Amino acid sequence: IADALVKLKVPYGGYLQGLSMYSPEREVGSAKIFGPAFTVHMVLESDTKAPTPATHFVDSIPKDSVIFLSQPKKTINSVWGGLMSTRAQVLGSQGVVIDGYFRDINEHKDLNFPLFARGFSIVASNTFTRTSAINVPVPFVSENQTDPITINPGDFILADADGVVVIPPPLVEQCLKLCEERNEVDKKTRECLVNGEAFGPTIARLRK
Amino acid sequence: IADALVKLKVPYGGYLQGLSMYSPEREVGSAKIFGPAFTVHMVLESDTKAPTPATHFVDSIPKDSVIFLSQPKKTINSVWGGLMSTRAQVLGSQGVVIDGYFRDINEHKDLNFPLFARGFSIVASNTFTRTSAINVPVPFVSENQTDPITINPGDFILADADGVVVIPPPLVEQCLKLCEERNEVDKKTRECLVNGEAFGPTIARLRK
Amino acid sequence: IADALVKLKVPYGGYLQGLSMYSPEREVGSAKIFGPAFTVHMVLESDTKAPTPATHFVDSIPKDSVIFLSQPKKTINSVWGGLMSTRAQVLGSQGVVIDGYFRDINEHKDLNFPLFARGFSIVASNTFTRTSAINVPVPFVSENQTDPITINPGDFILADADGVVVIPPPLVEQCLKLCEERNEVDKKTRECLVNGEAFGPTIARLRK
Repeated sequence: IADALVKLKVPYGGYLQGLSMYSPEREVGSAKIFGPAFTVHMVLESDTKAPTPATHFVDSIPKDSVIFLSQPKKTINSVWGGLMSTRAQVLGSQGVVIDGYFRDINEHKDLNFPLFARGFSIVASNTFTRTSAINVPVPFVSENQTDPITINPGDFILADADGVVVIPPPLVEQCLKLCEERNEVDKKTRECLVNGEAFGPTIARLRK
Repeated sequence: IADALVKLKVPYGGYLQGLSMYSPEREVGSAKIFGPAFTVHMVLESDTKAPTPATHFVDSIPKDSVIFLSQPKKTINSVWGGLMSTRAQVLGSQGVVIDGYFRDINEHKDLNFPLFARGFSIVASNTFTRTSAINVPVPFVSENQTDPITINPGDFILADADGVVVIPPPLVEQCLKLCEERNEVDKKTRECLVNGEAFGPTIARLRK
Repeated sequence: IADALVKLKVPYGGYLQGLSMYSPEREVGSAKIFGPAFTVHMVLESDTKAPTPATHFVDSIPKDSVIFLSQPKKTINSVWGGLMSTRAQVLGSQGVVIDGYFRDINEHKDLNFPLFARGFSIVASNTFTRTSAINVPVPFVSENQTDPITINPGDFILADADGVVVIPPPLVEQCLKLCEERNEVDKKTRECLVNGEAFGPTIARLRK
């Protein structure tokens, strides 16, 4: 998918480096989620100027969505926990992607609720960060990037053991077509390699 | 626990971010340790002014303690290995928390000895770091913190798959009481959420 | 091994900190690889001055070798994937060590092909990095090192759940001898510790 997006000139192929699978398994297995992003923008608790939503963001999660939480850098707390996964699952969400920290690792696995994150924290958000806006564009920057990637509400998020990718809606169809072609090519390439054919000439021939 | 400590004004809720469970399992499962800290302060081998203990620190580990090792930053070696876990287990320690690196991952798991650390290293401490003092206050600083957390000898350490927390002894009773109350609330909250009740109103009602 | 190399004055004991086992298991288990390094030097795609090999490096992998890939820092792409492991396995390689990123985690595990790396990336190398030279010396620098370690073609690489070590060929025999002696000592030490003997006096006596 990311390769197709690179071909389609999407910066960094829409790949969100540094976010990895924690549930249902740790960076392994066949679990995969795909759905439109429901974005949540968090700010420092000390930021009194940023707006505050009228209701808790967890109750606004749409069916089939992938929740995307953006937590400020250089903060120590978690912004997601087991009770939130419980509610999100009842509401029919596909899973949650956290550009930040979460807690209750065993609880998410017990729920079999897909969860991707930067890492762990035991500490709740109280006194550290708070929700500011729901369904607004949020930026993503990994340590190896020079330019931010923007995650817009409704962008498609695909996430599995290999990582998390964001796909702009106008490119979804083209992207899927490129991926199907490539999957077919990879399958044939694998057969050739298992039969002892050389790598360079095989991909030169099959990837044209 | 960390939430209770935040309420009790302990900086960062006593949470030691960046230390995670490596044994008996990797960041998963029900293993939990709780006990008074036996602290060990390490310095660079090149530091000839810092004191040197008369005996090896491993032989001074008290029964039921949680060992806490503080290794200088920007060093490449391990300060703990399988033979040390073997001795610590014989002496009745609950487990070891290493603000630094360890080796012999399989050996600790085979012993079923709880181990939490910053990470791995194959290289022994010889020529890199050495023990300087036992049962002295040691500082902890994670990459997201501005102020250090001090771990004092006798502070209570609680560690599980979600991370490591330090609890000052005068707060233990109050902290446990807050936690029991919160566990009760979380249990009720979970029941409400599973029954389809909204998150915001439920926590507003139950957490009062 | 690294301890023996420290004794033999090899910088950092030849230990490549930050590279860890992803396949066949994640930082656990008895898998171990040992073989001469087949090195691959990658450069930024934008580097038009660096040379380009005539053929794809994967087809030059020698039997019994350990592949060592050096990817530039501050890049976001992967330089290794499942199809490459498929070809490398057919050619009889012991495994691959990547100072950089890879993808297709499940595929490598399914192949049972040993893989060690800095981390993951979904994005292919196209437009980001490219192969420049095969079987040339490549440098390694971890975040805790001041001086680089050089990996030369033909250096021996040993890698297991505890990490990756590079051994200069002239030291292999001496190193193995020191390791056998030390293994014997560690076995005796373990027996003493299990019998309740103290750590300090035991290692003082047995390690002489």
